[in-house]
Amino acid sequence: MDSNGSGRVIPGPTNPMVTPLLTDHYQFTMAYAYWKAGKHQERAVFDLYFRRSPFGGEYTIFAGLEECVRFISNYKISEDEIHFIKNTLPASCEDGFFDYLRGIDCCDVEVYAIAEGTVVFPKVPLMRIEGPVAVVQLLETPFVNLINFASLVATNAARHRFVAGKSKTLLEFGLRRAQGPDGGISASKYCYIGGFDATSNVAAGRLFGIPLRGTHSHAFVSSYMGVNEIADKSLRKKDGSGACEDFVVLVQKWLNKIKWSNSLCGIFSDTNQSELAAFTSYALAFPDNFLALVDTYDVVRSGVPNFCAVALALSDLGYKAVGIRLDSGDLAYLSCESRKFFCSIEKEFGVPDFGEMSITASNDLNEETLDALNKQGHEVDAYGIGTYLVTCYAQAALGVVFKLVEINKQPRIKLSEDVSKVSIPCKKRIYRLYGKETYPLVDIMRGENEPPPKVGERILCRHPFQESKRAYVVPQQVEELLKCYFAGSSDKKSETLPPLKDIRERCIKQLEQMRPDHMRRLNPTPYKVCVSAKLYDFIHFLWLNEAPVGELR
Amino acid sequence: MDSNGSGRVIPGPTNPMVTPLLTDHYQFTMAYAYWKAGKHQERAVFDLYFRRSPFGGEYTIFAGLEECVRFISNYKISEDEIHFIKNTLPASCEDGFFDYLRGIDCCDVEVYAIAEGTVVFPKVPLMRIEGPVAVVQLLETPFVNLINFASLVATNAARHRFVAGKSKTLLEFGLRRAQGPDGGISASKYCYIGGFDATSNVAAGRLFGIPLRGTHSHAFVSSYMGVNEIADKSLRKKDGSGACEDFVVLVQKWLNKIKWSNSLCGIFSDTNQSELAAFTSYALAFPDNFLALVDTYDVVRSGVPNFCAVALALSDLGYKAVGIRLDSGDLAYLSCESRKFFCSIEKEFGVPDFGEMSITASNDLNEETLDALNKQGHEVDAYGIGTYLVTCYAQAALGVVFKLVEINKQPRIKLSEDVSKVSIPCKKRIYRLYGKETYPLVDIMRGENEPPPKVGERILCRHPFQESKRAYVVPQQVEELLKCYFAGSSDKKSETLPPLKDIRERCIKQLEQMRPDHMRRLNPTPYKVCVSAKLYDFIHFLWLNEAPVGELR
Repeated sequence: MDSNGSGRVIPGPTNPMVTPLLTDHYQFTMAYAYWKAGKHQERAVFDLYFRRSPFGGEYTIFAGLEECVRFISNYKISEDEIHFIKNTLPASCEDGFFDYLRGIDCCDVEVYAIAEGTVVFPKVPLMRIEGPVAVVQLLETPFVNLINFASLVATNAARHRFVAGKSKTLLEFGLRRAQGPDGGISASKYCYIGGFDATSNVAAGRLFGIPLRGTHSHAFVSSYMGVNEIADKSLRKKDGSGACEDFVVLVQKWLNKIKWSNSLCGIFSDTNQSELAAFTSYALAFPDNFLALVDTYDVVRSGVPNFCAVALALSDLGYKAVGIRLDSGDLAYLSCESRKFFCSIEKEFGVPDFGEMSITASNDLNEETLDALNKQGHEVDAYGIGTYLVTCYAQAALGVVFKLVEINKQPRIKLSEDVSKVSIPCKKRIYRLYGKETYPLVDIMRGENEPPPKVGERILCRHPFQESKRAYVVPQQVEELLKCYFAGSSDKKSETLPPLKDIRERCIKQLEQMRPDHMRRLNPTPYKVCVSAKLYDFIHFLWLNEAPVGELR
Repeated sequence: MDSNGSGRVIPGPTNPMVTPLLTDHYQFTMAYAYWKAGKHQERAVFDLYFRRSPFGGEYTIFAGLEECVRFISNYKISEDEIHFIKNTLPASCEDGFFDYLRGIDCCDVEVYAIAEGTVVFPKVPLMRIEGPVAVVQLLETPFVNLINFASLVATNAARHRFVAGKSKTLLEFGLRRAQGPDGGISASKYCYIGGFDATSNVAAGRLFGIPLRGTHSHAFVSSYMGVNEIADKSLRKKDGSGACEDFVVLVQKWLNKIKWSNSLCGIFSDTNQSELAAFTSYALAFPDNFLALVDTYDVVRSGVPNFCAVALALSDLGYKAVGIRLDSGDLAYLSCESRKFFCSIEKEFGVPDFGEMSITASNDLNEETLDALNKQGHEVDAYGIGTYLVTCYAQAALGVVFKLVEINKQPRIKLSEDVSKVSIPCKKRIYRLYGKETYPLVDIMRGENEPPPKVGERILCRHPFQESKRAYVVPQQVEELLKCYFAGSSDKKSETLPPLKDIRERCIKQLEQMRPDHMRRLNPTPYKVCVSAKLYDFIHFLWLNEAPVGELR
C-alpha cells in the first residue's frame, strides 16, 4: 500500500494479480518506441468512455474506480517483472529503457473521474487520465479491464433490481457460474453496488462486508435416507425453559395433524422421508434460521408439507421459521400454492404470521423471467439470481475504450469510417445540467478553458456529430462530473474513496432521480449527451484537417 | 504449496484469491447441519458434469483440472477464515464445529478426472469426487467455478481455431474486455489450451509461458505530429557494416519512389504525416519486428503506402519487416488490396518475399465473422481476437453441475420434472469406445463393479433415459476416462499434472481425431453417451422408487 498526495494510505488492488504486467504487450513495445524517439515524457490526456449502454438500455452504472485508484497508487514495476519484460523484447532494446521502467511510479499522473456508482451515458469520459504518454499507455489495459466488467455487472444488477421492484430481496448466487474466481468476486461486489442485498460468496462477504445468505442444496436433501440418521434429536426451547427430547417425534406429530386437517386434507399423502429427515436435521442445527429448499421431490405434495411440519414443531418451542426456496418448475404457480398452504395453516392452527412465511425463488432467473413472473402474479419475496446476472449473459462485455485526446497541449482526434467511433478531441470538462423537476436533462462536454455553465443561463447544446441536432437548455442546477481522484505527487486535492455502502447508496439514489422514460426496459428515451458550440466547431475543424480527401475513380 | 500422496509438491492455485472461503455460504451452513446430525464423515461420491455443450456445438474441451488439484492439495482453512465463518453463523453454533473445520485437510478426499484438454460430452462425469460429505460439499463451488469458465473458453477457442483453419496464427487480444482481471488471465491460459498461438496479456505470458504478441495502437499513431519529433534518426545496418544517419530521409525517398512507380502511381497522393512519423519511429525501435497498424486514417491511401516506404527502407539496411494489422473496415477487401500492393512492390522493386508480408486482422472478430471472411476470400494470415472470445459472448456460461450420486454406498438420484435434469446415480466408471476408423464412437458409463468393456466384444449401449434408444457396439479400442488425480493420504497412485503445452497438444490431437460430422458448426451429429444395460435398469428402479405417485384431481 502507498499514500497519495494527501498523505492517505491507499491499499493495493483487491486481486493481487492486478500488477503492472496485467497489460497488453504492445503497451511495453510502444513505451520502448516512445522512449527511443525521446517522446516518452510528452504529456498526454486520454479519455476512458464507452460508446453504447449495455442490454439495450440507455444508462450504465460507472463502477471499478476504486480498484483503478488502488492500482495506480501502488504502481511499481518490480525487478522480476522488468527482467521478464526484457526477455519478451528484442535483445536490441537498450538498457536505458529498463532503467526508465524501474523509475516509473505514476507521481506525474493525474486521474479525474466521475464518482463511482453514478449513472452515466455513452461518449461521456468516465475518467480522464493525464500524464507522460508512455506511462498512461501502460495503464490503459488494466484500467479498461477494471472498469469494463465492473460497470457492466453493476448495470446488470441495477436492471434486475428495476424489474424486481424495490420491496423484493435480491440475492446474488452466481459464484459457481462466474467467469473465473475473480469474475465471481467482482460480480458479488458490483452487484451489491447495483442494488442487490446480499451474496452467497463467502470470500466477497469477507473482502467487502457484503451480507451473506444461503441455506442448503438438493444434495443436502438427498444425502439423508431417513430421520433415524440424526444423532442428537433434542432441541432446547428458545426461551431456555426446558427442551424437547425428541424433535423428530414432534415434527411427525405435526405432519400428521396437517395431513388430516380440514383445509389441507387430501393435498398430500406420504411425503418423502429423505427430505423430512434433511429438513429436521437442518432445523435442529439452525432453529432460528430455518429456510428449506422444497423442490427436490415435489413442492406441493412433499416439500411444503414437510417444511410446515418442521416449522410448526419449531413454533411449539418458540422459534420462528424463515421460509422456503423454490428452485424449479413454475415459480409463479408454486409460490401461490405455497402461500395458500401457509395461510391455511395460519388459519387452521392459529399460528400468527405463518401466512407471511418468506418465499425465495431461484433457477436461471433473469430480467425477462422476473418480468414474466410479475405479469403472471406471484408470491415471491426474494430472488436468488446467478448465471444470467454474474456473467452478464445478455451482453457479456461493455465496449469501454481509452482514447488519446491531447498530447503536448495539441488536441488529437481518432477518425473512423463509422462516425460513432470518431473520438471527441481536447481536454474537456463535463457538466450535468438539471431541469426544473430535479431530473438530469443533459450532459455537456466543454473545452477545459471554457467557463462553466451557469444556473439560469440559456446554453446551446450540440450533438457532437450531427449538425442539425441542437437544443437550448436553462439549467436549474449544474454539477461538474469529473473530479480529481489521483493527483500523483502534485499538491492538488483529491477525493477520498468512499466506503462500498456509500457507493451503493449513491447508485440507488441516482437511479431514483432519473426521468422514468430513460429507465424503461423497452425503447427507453435516449438521454442527451452534447458538446458546447465552441467544442463542436473545433471538432469539425480538426476532423476536416485530418481526414484525407477521397478520389472517386 | 503442499505435497500429495506421491510426495510431489503441488503449488497453490494461480489466483491467490482461490481460498476455502471462495465458496457459497450454504456449504458452511450445510457442513454445520451435517456435523450437528453426526453425518459429516459419511462417505459421499459426487459427479461433476454439464448437461449440454456450449455454442450450439456437440463437444466441449475439459479444462481447469490443474487449478482444482492445486486448490485441494493446499486446502486448509486458516484461523482468520474460521473466525470470519463463525461470525457469519448464528451464535448458537457449537464450538466443536469450528474445531472440526480447523482439522479439514482433504486427506480423505479422492478426485478422479478425465485428462485436462480432452474432448468431452454432456452427462459424462468430468470429475468424480469422493470423501466425507461435509468436506466434498465445501469443494463444490470452487471446483465448479474453476471448471466452468475454463472449459467454456477453451471450447470457444477451439471453435475459433476450427473456423480459422490450421494454417492461420491466432492471437488472443481480450484482456481489456474480459470479465475482471482473472477473467482475462484465465481466458489467456485456456484459449492457449484450445489452440490459440499467443496472447497479448503479459501477466499470462509470465504465469504460463504463453508466447506474447502485440505491436502498437491507434493512440501511438495519433500521438505523433510529424517526423521532426523523432530524436535519434540513425539506424545501424543489420549486418553491422555501417549505419544510415537519417532513416527518415530514406523512408521519404522510398515513399516518393512508390508514389510515382508504374504500377502504383495514382493510388495515393499525400499520406498522413503523423502516421508516417509513428511508423518510422516504431521501425527505429524495432527494426527486426516491424509490424504496423495501418487503418488509423485510410488503409489504401495512407497506411499501406506509409508501411511499404518504411519496410523498403528497412530492407535497404538488411532488415525484413513483419507486416501490417487491419483493425477496421472491410477486412476481406482491405487484406486483398494490401496483398496486391505488396505484390506490386515485390515485382516493381525486386524485393524478395515482399508479397508475402504478413497481414493480421482484428476488430470484433468471432466465429461468424471468420466464417464470412472465408466465404468472401481474403489474404489474412493472422487473427487477433478479443471480446467475443474471452467473454464467450455467444454463450457466457457453461452449466457445470455437481451432483451427489452415492452416500454410505447407497446410490442417490436427483429427480426433476425436466428429464434432462435427472442425475445418473451410482459411483461409475467411464469408457470411451473407438471404432474401426480410430474415431471415438461412444462414451459408456458403467457401475463401479461392472467389468470393463473388452475390445472385440459386442456391447449393448443404452440411452440413460430413453428406453428405445439402444445400440450394439464392437469396440476396436477401449479407453478408461476417469483417472485418479488426487489420492489424499491414501497410497493410491495419482496422475502427474502435465505441463500446459502437453495439455494444449492433447487438446489439438483430440479434436483432430473426432469424426468430422460431430465437429460441424451447424447441425452437428450428436455424439453418443450411454449407460450399460445393468446401470440402465438400476437407474429406472431407483427412479420409480423415489418419485411420488401423482394423483390427477
